[in-house]
Amino acid sequence: MMNIKRCKFNPIVTCKDVVPSSRDFEVIGAFNPGAALYKGEIVLAMRVAERFKDNNDGHIKIPVIDGQSAALKTVDLDKEDDRYDFSDSRVIKEKDSCCDFVYLTSMSHVRLARSTDGVNFKIEDKPFIFPENRYESFGIEDPRITEIDGSYFITYSSVSQYGIVTSLAVTSDFKDYKKLGNIFETENKDVVIFPEKINGRYFALNRPVSKSTGDPVIWISESYDLLHWGNHRILACTRKGHWDSEKIGAGIPPVKTDRGWLELYHGVDDQGHYSMGALLLDVNCPSRIIARSEKPLLDPRMDYETGGFFSNVVFPCGAVKKHEKLYIYYGISDNSIGLAAAALEDILSTLG
Amino acid sequence: MMNIKRCKFNPIVTCKDVVPSSRDFEVIGAFNPGAALYKGEIVLAMRVAERFKDNNDGHIKIPVIDGQSAALKTVDLDKEDDRYDFSDSRVIKEKDSCCDFVYLTSMSHVRLARSTDGVNFKIEDKPFIFPENRYESFGIEDPRITEIDGSYFITYSSVSQYGIVTSLAVTSDFKDYKKLGNIFETENKDVVIFPEKINGRYFALNRPVSKSTGDPVIWISESYDLLHWGNHRILACTRKGHWDSEKIGAGIPPVKTDRGWLELYHGVDDQGHYSMGALLLDVNCPSRIIARSEKPLLDPRMDYETGGFFSNVVFPCGAVKKHEKLYIYYGISDNSIGLAAAALEDILSTLG
Repeated sequence: MMNIKRCKFNPIVTCKDVVPSSRDFEVIGAFNPGAALYKGEIVLAMRVAERFKDNNDGHIKIPVIDGQSAALKTVDLDKEDDRYDFSDSRVIKEKDSCCDFVYLTSMSHVRLARSTDGVNFKIEDKPFIFPENRYESFGIEDPRITEIDGSYFITYSSVSQYGIVTSLAVTSDFKDYKKLGNIFETENKDVVIFPEKINGRYFALNRPVSKSTGDPVIWISESYDLLHWGNHRILACTRKGHWDSEKIGAGIPPVKTDRGWLELYHGVDDQGHYSMGALLLDVNCPSRIIARSEKPLLDPRMDYETGGFFSNVVFPCGAVKKHEKLYIYYGISDNSIGLAAAALEDILSTLG
Repeated sequence: MMNIKRCKFNPIVTCKDVVPSSRDFEVIGAFNPGAALYKGEIVLAMRVAERFKDNNDGHIKIPVIDGQSAALKTVDLDKEDDRYDFSDSRVIKEKDSCCDFVYLTSMSHVRLARSTDGVNFKIEDKPFIFPENRYESFGIEDPRITEIDGSYFITYSSVSQYGIVTSLAVTSDFKDYKKLGNIFETENKDVVIFPEKINGRYFALNRPVSKSTGDPVIWISESYDLLHWGNHRILACTRKGHWDSEKIGAGIPPVKTDRGWLELYHGVDDQGHYSMGALLLDVNCPSRIIARSEKPLLDPRMDYETGGFFSNVVFPCGAVKKHEKLYIYYGISDNSIGLAAAALEDILSTLG
């Protein structure tokens, strides 16, 4: 096993550290953070999941955003309502349906946290990006940040009754931001943008999901303006019998190294465990894979990783490079945030 | 009911009219045709579905294209194999799976047919576009043609083990063509491109399908070059209790009229019947709906429409305008081709 070290203070952020966005809410998770270096600080754009506090009277109250007014509404469901299946703590399903959900039990937004040492974070009291339109009515999730020429582009999953799309926002100061619309249609998430043009084009990894057939796998797409994407191709597939046999999705925005683009991605095995591994992509032709982790670089094994809201999940979304070392911020079990660090050289050495 | 007239020679093309692409195949459908006017002729780009002839010994032979070599391969399944569900004549499913298919029983390609009168078609002996890559390994389906400045852009669904994407090809002479890659990722089909730029941008209607939640509905997307698409938004949703309650998808490429863009689309009701209705879209802002059919303009009611391989389907994919009359070519029950004609004015008059 390579020399990748979890921070001894893990989890470095938990839901207890986060002030709810409303007095009616409790925070049930602060996880899956995008990461950036900004003016000497490490900024995390965390996914903060909240639910209504008073849910103990045989009803469940679900927060949703009205797509027209952007106002917060409550959907009140009777737990005896036999149209619905309440057995999954994360979602409400329709009985006898193949759909994954009709509602989520919580709603997520994007919250910022800042640190000078990368370990101790000051978490903002208010949301940074909050859901507000019809594509975001069930929440916004799993932000990833890519800096391009001083602009920080943030991709995030917008979840609604219409499915899961990937939207784009941009900020230059982590105070204000501008939403730039939906860049990948339902159903697509885990979108990471490369930090520079390659042969005149931007590239993004993304993870479309097919209803009809096939495992969720990583695709690569191209753009001239970050807003319009095309030339969609499959980059990497699941590997039966491996740690990434069931689903894979991009994790951190690719990091340029001497040997190529390093992508840390998540893979799901046949036990439903989410681990982190690496792809090394040709520096001039990122649709070409040079190497891929035979074994995970990080898998759920610590107590704080094997428990949680949705257990056994290691889910990297952001990393910061400092002095040839990579500081990897990863979501832990849809609940909290972990930090793991390794020398870039050590990670690359695992890739043959 | 409006004055829309089916051709008395319907179905104007059936599978009996089509020469198989290989002596091992039988043609089981010629349907869902894109249509174009080219040098005074009406050209149909038909979906031709074929399967292996000898499938009666307890085995089923499935045609697939090898994604590497582009060679035709055979997958041979034992009908006693209890991993699979053979009950749907169109697809092979995995038992206890939510996926729609693991294989298709037939493979489709695009075949051309030409006519001077719009009714009697001469069908080419050879395929025009044949599946050849990993995205097309189960076949290519449901072409739509949009002429832009003398180039004919053909969108089609590419089907494979990786799902259903929409690919683009272009021809200027209906002899040679060039494939331009995948323009919409899995799962997305029923893509129709508007025939001109609007406010400097191209527009396309498309139909992403969500695995997680929501009905399949019509989205609208924008592009500067027809290859890269963005600003994805929902155009029209299903309407519970209506003829288009379960799914909707674009049919013909939009036709410019005095009152706006006329889109003939398909809707599926709670009986699974596919009918055709209209959307009228703002001529300068096609994401704005001006009017929508309360009732279908064409629904499956003739004997030849209520039977067939997959019965009760009226599925428009192409139309040609001549002398202010619209000649609509529609797929009949995944099997044959029908023609219906109406004055544009008559169609518009149904839209208030």
